[in-house]
Amino acid sequence: MMHRGERSAEVVVVGAGLAGLMAARHLRSFGVDVLVLEARSRVGGRTWSILAGDGQTVIDMGGQWIGPTQKRLAKLAAELGVTTFPTYDVGQNIQYIDGERHTYSGAIPLIDPKVTMEVVQTMLTLNMMAHEVPLDAPWTAPNAAEWDAQTLETWIAANVKTQGARELLAIAIRAIFCAEPRDLSLLHVLFYTHSAGSLNDLVGVTRGAQEQRFHAGAQAISNGMAAALGERVIRNAPVYAVAQDDAGVRVMAEEVTVSAKAAIIALPPVLAGRIRYSPALPALRDQLTQRMPMGTVYKIHCIYPTPFWREAGLSGQVTNYRGVAATVFDNSPASGTPGVLLVFVEGDEARAWSTRSANERRAAVLGDLGHYFGEQAAQPTEYIEQFWAAEEYSRGCYAGYMPPGVWSAFGPALRAPVGRLFWAGTETATEWNGYMDGALQSGERAANEALALLGIRAAGPASDQVMG
Amino acid sequence: MMHRGERSAEVVVVGAGLAGLMAARHLRSFGVDVLVLEARSRVGGRTWSILAGDGQTVIDMGGQWIGPTQKRLAKLAAELGVTTFPTYDVGQNIQYIDGERHTYSGAIPLIDPKVTMEVVQTMLTLNMMAHEVPLDAPWTAPNAAEWDAQTLETWIAANVKTQGARELLAIAIRAIFCAEPRDLSLLHVLFYTHSAGSLNDLVGVTRGAQEQRFHAGAQAISNGMAAALGERVIRNAPVYAVAQDDAGVRVMAEEVTVSAKAAIIALPPVLAGRIRYSPALPALRDQLTQRMPMGTVYKIHCIYPTPFWREAGLSGQVTNYRGVAATVFDNSPASGTPGVLLVFVEGDEARAWSTRSANERRAAVLGDLGHYFGEQAAQPTEYIEQFWAAEEYSRGCYAGYMPPGVWSAFGPALRAPVGRLFWAGTETATEWNGYMDGALQSGERAANEALALLGIRAAGPASDQVMG
Repeated sequence: MMHRGERSAEVVVVGAGLAGLMAARHLRSFGVDVLVLEARSRVGGRTWSILAGDGQTVIDMGGQWIGPTQKRLAKLAAELGVTTFPTYDVGQNIQYIDGERHTYSGAIPLIDPKVTMEVVQTMLTLNMMAHEVPLDAPWTAPNAAEWDAQTLETWIAANVKTQGARELLAIAIRAIFCAEPRDLSLLHVLFYTHSAGSLNDLVGVTRGAQEQRFHAGAQAISNGMAAALGERVIRNAPVYAVAQDDAGVRVMAEEVTVSAKAAIIALPPVLAGRIRYSPALPALRDQLTQRMPMGTVYKIHCIYPTPFWREAGLSGQVTNYRGVAATVFDNSPASGTPGVLLVFVEGDEARAWSTRSANERRAAVLGDLGHYFGEQAAQPTEYIEQFWAAEEYSRGCYAGYMPPGVWSAFGPALRAPVGRLFWAGTETATEWNGYMDGALQSGERAANEALALLGIRAAGPASDQVMG
Repeated sequence: MMHRGERSAEVVVVGAGLAGLMAARHLRSFGVDVLVLEARSRVGGRTWSILAGDGQTVIDMGGQWIGPTQKRLAKLAAELGVTTFPTYDVGQNIQYIDGERHTYSGAIPLIDPKVTMEVVQTMLTLNMMAHEVPLDAPWTAPNAAEWDAQTLETWIAANVKTQGARELLAIAIRAIFCAEPRDLSLLHVLFYTHSAGSLNDLVGVTRGAQEQRFHAGAQAISNGMAAALGERVIRNAPVYAVAQDDAGVRVMAEEVTVSAKAAIIALPPVLAGRIRYSPALPALRDQLTQRMPMGTVYKIHCIYPTPFWREAGLSGQVTNYRGVAATVFDNSPASGTPGVLLVFVEGDEARAWSTRSANERRAAVLGDLGHYFGEQAAQPTEYIEQFWAAEEYSRGCYAGYMPPGVWSAFGPALRAPVGRLFWAGTETATEWNGYMDGALQSGERAANEALALLGIRAAGPASDQVMG
């Protein structure tokens, strides 16, 4: 194959997810000679769009939504002609509590007014705290030491009184992080919240991060960027070693080695840490890669002839803090046919169920759907399960997160270049960290850093261009 | 070289630290054909003994002590003829508080009786809690959910009133874990404490984990085991891939590949996670390796013509919760000449100082020693610094630890064999986890698991033999 063997470029990018492809695209716009090495046979990283058994319904196995303040993603999608449609958000939502099914309208369940009031109040408090966290240096927040010394669960236990509110918050946190409130540094939750705007932005459908979907699936964004890069993207090339010296970098993948002046590592920290570096990375950077684990989530699609729940006045949206099917959405295509329910199994549930058989998981998920929507929901025509923690080149989803203490002691190593190496990936973003939009920001920022090394004057940092 | 290329054995061991070598030794005692692959040019892992500039004083760059209940290590040392001598523990200890130097006798500073009383009381409380944590399954402790949902710092803030006691406890925790109280799950601290016996066992010199040293240095234990294994130990062979199928395993290192019926991976989880497995590890196991970061510590030796502090009635032991030189010991050889002070720079201090120059660190450490022992201490004839976080084949010390939530969701994956793969390393030990003794227990346990796979009936689990 023509692209194997010894290659060279001005900049080599490791990883053809949104961050890496955006970095390469930005470099190309300055005429820089770039090569992208991708471990998988496809591009897109944690976005991956396939067709259902009918051969035409697009199923997003990974990231899929775009929200109103995700301007970078919207701009890029428009450039690439990838169009959007609104997430189905009409009708009653279901909340399933202790085996009882309740329905409600709006973003927050109104089953118990005392609980609703406390949830609203707590979200306001957390939003206000979040805005005290500087996005480029969370460890410099006035209360950073206190907030990074505790888990979110500790904070909830001390500050939220009703059991109902505690459980609703836990549902939201699991849905956002694919982790438990006990796994997360309070400071990280606040940083992440601020980077998205507010908790309302994070959990919202209409006017929130789940507002719109892509007709062609989210991977179409990466496919579009990759098409423009053409043979500059080399697939099936898992990078195992990166060497640098005064003269340049050498990035080694199976069957191909690239020499360049700079490298952009566009991987989550846990994957970046599994590459062998020569010379070894600074200890602070290496130890950071030991401390940003990926979340744990199954994304499951159940397909039905029609979205029958709509006729019953239901939105398809469910929250359940005891079940395996913790969070459910109507993920039918824009046409409304076939009907598609999207189920997330998150955090502890995902971890526990990962040791059971696929049949057992399926039975548990469909059992829950039967409780939510009736027997019909337990009989899908197709059932598609994706477990990101079992993907060798992701090792979890949606993103890497920080347990207590990591921002405080290792934060400065998150983006700091190491010689000719620059770090991209949504985990390094200051806006929409953990999201597709954040991946794009990170790619542009890392590309600008590489341009500076090459002596090319780039535009200001990506954040100034869109949000400033 | 005769040992390169394609090799085969009944069992292949990855890592020639204490765990891997003990596993191989135990297998050999059953006549099993074994090969050990070691990444470094030396054996011993996190134990490493060198000679000072005088060509005769043994300097332990890593693990060095043996305590009275570490029976496995004592038995093995006796077998190998590696003799011990008492750690120097005579005279007054120094506590340095807010720039003031205090001296005291015994294990706990008696500067302020109220503080001392609270420290003693808190240690008793933590010891009692620790004994409720089952060593083989910490997540089944009656209060596991609560204890694993918070950091140790959260517990201290809620349960310890005086600032002095909080800071003394933090010093102890840093010295034990090379991490901050905010980094650690309370459940993990309790497990670790129980695995050693009590906090008193962990922090004690005489009658504690720091009671004795080895004349020849701790690495002599590994060197002795390696000598007995002869050419079965293959050095300079960093393993990068492990494959298994129904027929056996293949372990790939640079320049050598070993085929065997079983493999024992005797590495800390963070290093085990950087090997490529085929098929991929179960998600729970892989995600565990993302969640057990290594501690951060500099171990520094300062050498003087004589141990001059002894003449001043000082033990050489210092604690300081503000300084860079947080913990100091007299580490002179048994003869008492030359005088050697051992300095640990731990946790946040180690992380922060890792980004400074060696000269700046040296000046800061010697500045502290001058405050503790007078100007003479700032003028060593030799200064030896070892930073374990910068070691590619350790990536931190003393051990991997658990942030909140990890025991609860990932604990069952810590020792569970994966097909023909068995997990050793001190992080998997139930007794003296994190210590040399725990490494030996883990090696014997993993070897017994491999024996069972080979159909060889081994003796009962290692824990029954020594402590039962």
